[in-house]
Amino acid sequence: MSKPIEVRNPRNGKYDYVIVPPPPKLLAQQCKRLRRAQKNWREIGLEGRVKALQEWREGILSERDNLVNALTNDTGRLRFSEIEVDSLLASIDYWCGFAPRNLREFRQETSIRFIQLQQSSVPYELVGVISPWSFPLQLSTIDIIPALLAGCAVVVKPSEIAPRFMIPLIKALNNAEKLRDVLAFIEGDGVTGKILIEQVDFICFTGHVSTGIKVAEAAVKCFIPSCLELGGKDPAIVLESANLELATSAILWGSILNTGQSCRAIERIYVAKSIYEDFFHKLVTKAHQVQLNDSDIKNGGIGPIVTPTQAKIIEDHLQEAIEKGATIHCGGKVEEINGGYWCRPTVITDIERDMKIMKEETFGPIMPVMPFSTLDEAVNLANDCDYGMSAAIFAADEEEALLFANDIEAGSISINDAALNNILHEGETNPFKFSSMGSSRTGASGLQRFLRQRSIFIKTKKVANPWWFDEPEIETLMNDEKSE
Amino acid sequence: MSKPIEVRNPRNGKYDYVIVPPPPKLLAQQCKRLRRAQKNWREIGLEGRVKALQEWREGILSERDNLVNALTNDTGRLRFSEIEVDSLLASIDYWCGFAPRNLREFRQETSIRFIQLQQSSVPYELVGVISPWSFPLQLSTIDIIPALLAGCAVVVKPSEIAPRFMIPLIKALNNAEKLRDVLAFIEGDGVTGKILIEQVDFICFTGHVSTGIKVAEAAVKCFIPSCLELGGKDPAIVLESANLELATSAILWGSILNTGQSCRAIERIYVAKSIYEDFFHKLVTKAHQVQLNDSDIKNGGIGPIVTPTQAKIIEDHLQEAIEKGATIHCGGKVEEINGGYWCRPTVITDIERDMKIMKEETFGPIMPVMPFSTLDEAVNLANDCDYGMSAAIFAADEEEALLFANDIEAGSISINDAALNNILHEGETNPFKFSSMGSSRTGASGLQRFLRQRSIFIKTKKVANPWWFDEPEIETLMNDEKSE
Repeated sequence: MSKPIEVRNPRNGKYDYVIVPPPPKLLAQQCKRLRRAQKNWREIGLEGRVKALQEWREGILSERDNLVNALTNDTGRLRFSEIEVDSLLASIDYWCGFAPRNLREFRQETSIRFIQLQQSSVPYELVGVISPWSFPLQLSTIDIIPALLAGCAVVVKPSEIAPRFMIPLIKALNNAEKLRDVLAFIEGDGVTGKILIEQVDFICFTGHVSTGIKVAEAAVKCFIPSCLELGGKDPAIVLESANLELATSAILWGSILNTGQSCRAIERIYVAKSIYEDFFHKLVTKAHQVQLNDSDIKNGGIGPIVTPTQAKIIEDHLQEAIEKGATIHCGGKVEEINGGYWCRPTVITDIERDMKIMKEETFGPIMPVMPFSTLDEAVNLANDCDYGMSAAIFAADEEEALLFANDIEAGSISINDAALNNILHEGETNPFKFSSMGSSRTGASGLQRFLRQRSIFIKTKKVANPWWFDEPEIETLMNDEKSE
Repeated sequence: MSKPIEVRNPRNGKYDYVIVPPPPKLLAQQCKRLRRAQKNWREIGLEGRVKALQEWREGILSERDNLVNALTNDTGRLRFSEIEVDSLLASIDYWCGFAPRNLREFRQETSIRFIQLQQSSVPYELVGVISPWSFPLQLSTIDIIPALLAGCAVVVKPSEIAPRFMIPLIKALNNAEKLRDVLAFIEGDGVTGKILIEQVDFICFTGHVSTGIKVAEAAVKCFIPSCLELGGKDPAIVLESANLELATSAILWGSILNTGQSCRAIERIYVAKSIYEDFFHKLVTKAHQVQLNDSDIKNGGIGPIVTPTQAKIIEDHLQEAIEKGATIHCGGKVEEINGGYWCRPTVITDIERDMKIMKEETFGPIMPVMPFSTLDEAVNLANDCDYGMSAAIFAADEEEALLFANDIEAGSISINDAALNNILHEGETNPFKFSSMGSSRTGASGLQRFLRQRSIFIKTKKVANPWWFDEPEIETLMNDEKSE
């Protein structure tokens, strides 16, 4: 019997939920069953798979309230729980429309006469997904939908920190008979995750860099592909010409969304010197108005910090910055309220570029603001980081922003808004540096990554292959057949 | 000073050439220079890069005789040295035509009003290539051409066993001024390869599985993508309806090409029981006619085994098969002639499926033939292997072969011919199991793998983002701007 894991409620600090990881043997058996069912799943074709996903969609709609409720207990916030459920519905719609246009086999002539090329593809049998607590539903399903449509079976291990949503999500599968056989959710922590990797043919991981590297190493040992989306430390760069009302609202929003607990949150802000004072006063004014929702979950833009570990990291980054001379203009500390950890939107200036708050992922509603003098300096500052998830650029002129964007090392860039990649999953993106490894999760690659491409070369005429070999003794053999 | 490495001549066993690996510091400096030059290479655009590659092509044409000569000394065979040079010319032509049709940036509307998506891409600065001795020129350049066209600088370390071709290939760069700055060839063995991985942003490796896994592990440590093409143990399956003249010629050819020293050589042959006797008699008759070219390189289809290590492996596999009761019908041993190692085309029957000759990569002109009774058995036998590079299927009817092909675990399949993937680099292919890891080297992915995709989201209207967030206090802030 595996050891149960107690789960903390982020709003009151109470351990009010328990998960029980499957014993390794049971997990292995389950994976075998999934593999067996995958054959049928592949055979029912894309149309059958789209239908099954739409049945799940119906189930999710019926379970919407239970899902929102479970996610709210998982994460301590309500609005984003609703957004997560709605995003999942939208994601199913999106991929079900996208896949039929993008999954196709075809035959074409090759450059050599008598040979046709048939391009087909073979899905990996079993895809594993290990997902984090920041957006428990969205990040556990972002890889599932395209993997299922590609024809794979999928086994998902959500974070042990936010696992409550699994029960209603599984319940939503009740009417999706065919899907039920090829999609499994399992409870557990890193130990179970490690065992999972050994059972699958492809592993998707979203989470912390240090764990991501371990996942990649384990994947190499099993010789399976891995697709990692890891941390971020997104910069926002505000050029001299920017609209400051727009920039401050968007940056505030991009920083504090989900209490900053997003790998695509803005965590560094660089502002042209000439507008720096104006900018940060406006930002502080707006940040001041955002309230904690500790007393009423429906009232206030800032929810709790989900884990005590994360609260300690935020505290540590703030502490170090203050000790090294930074100035806090609002927020600035982690508060413990009724067993939960909270942090108000925090604007900091007098920053040095080697402070942790400018280097490491903080994952809190923290806005360090630094001035820059020249565009070159702004580029250097923005790229002075081990992460390259995304970035935001503000400028009056779109062309000015696009030119600047060329030099920014990031997989996606929002121009005159922040974190648009959080809501728009169109287009392909490969975050730079330690932010990702492996194929884009969106666009055509988001689907294709789950398929091995196969080239079949069909010789349509009965001659052997003298056009690429003319050793005399072989040619003689060929001649017999040519005269056939 | 690094230790020089002596290089053996496979036709006479003499160590008649020396390479000197660069000291690590010098290699690091060279990589830095390549990186600096990459900026300009990227900026000259695709048109400029195509032009530079065509200048190299001219240089290769001028150096053709020297290249063929060097490759002949490297590998002991003449005809394939010529084929390799001609293939490189064809490959440059192919990619220079392909890239302009497939490298494009575009802008489109997204599903959210006011937001446009601009899709662009950013090449990795420096791509590393580590290549093997089997096809020294082809396999060192197969990744270079698309990487250069994508805008990367490239540093290549060919095998220390067959390095002579580098000098004429570098000389061919003399007139390609811009290309010279972003393409470097370095001498060295695995020690240099290891240092190389630490210097680059992307590593391509072709070679043995055991080394490939080490490369993948080193790449994870550096957190760079790797693209591996490793061993093979290709099966040929001859169905009852097959044309036996065609099948025996093609399979003989697919097995003995380059003396079997190809990861896409046919190393296992499965034949329908009813035609088994006929098949192997025909195969033996044809195999008998193929001669060693030991006395005259221009005369005879079989060249020397390139390395003494490989000769020992072939000997070991044959020895074990014989001890376990296999019957040799022709060839069957490694001969030492004037300091070189040679092996005649070898047909073996009375095979067991767990013999090394059916499991491990032999890399020699060895044809083990096994009968099968049912199509299911044939599928099981063909898939009973850790490799999944490619396969060949022979049947009277194309549709019959295609149906059978569905169940074969291989990245490319030739129908009614053998090893067509050796000559046709069209289409995408991801060899299965231990045969590959990472993106297809051919087709659109062959080019795209060297580019990070970037999504730029441009907001075209000056409103903030209330459509995905309606926390009251933020909405108030938004309203100010809506009225702007």
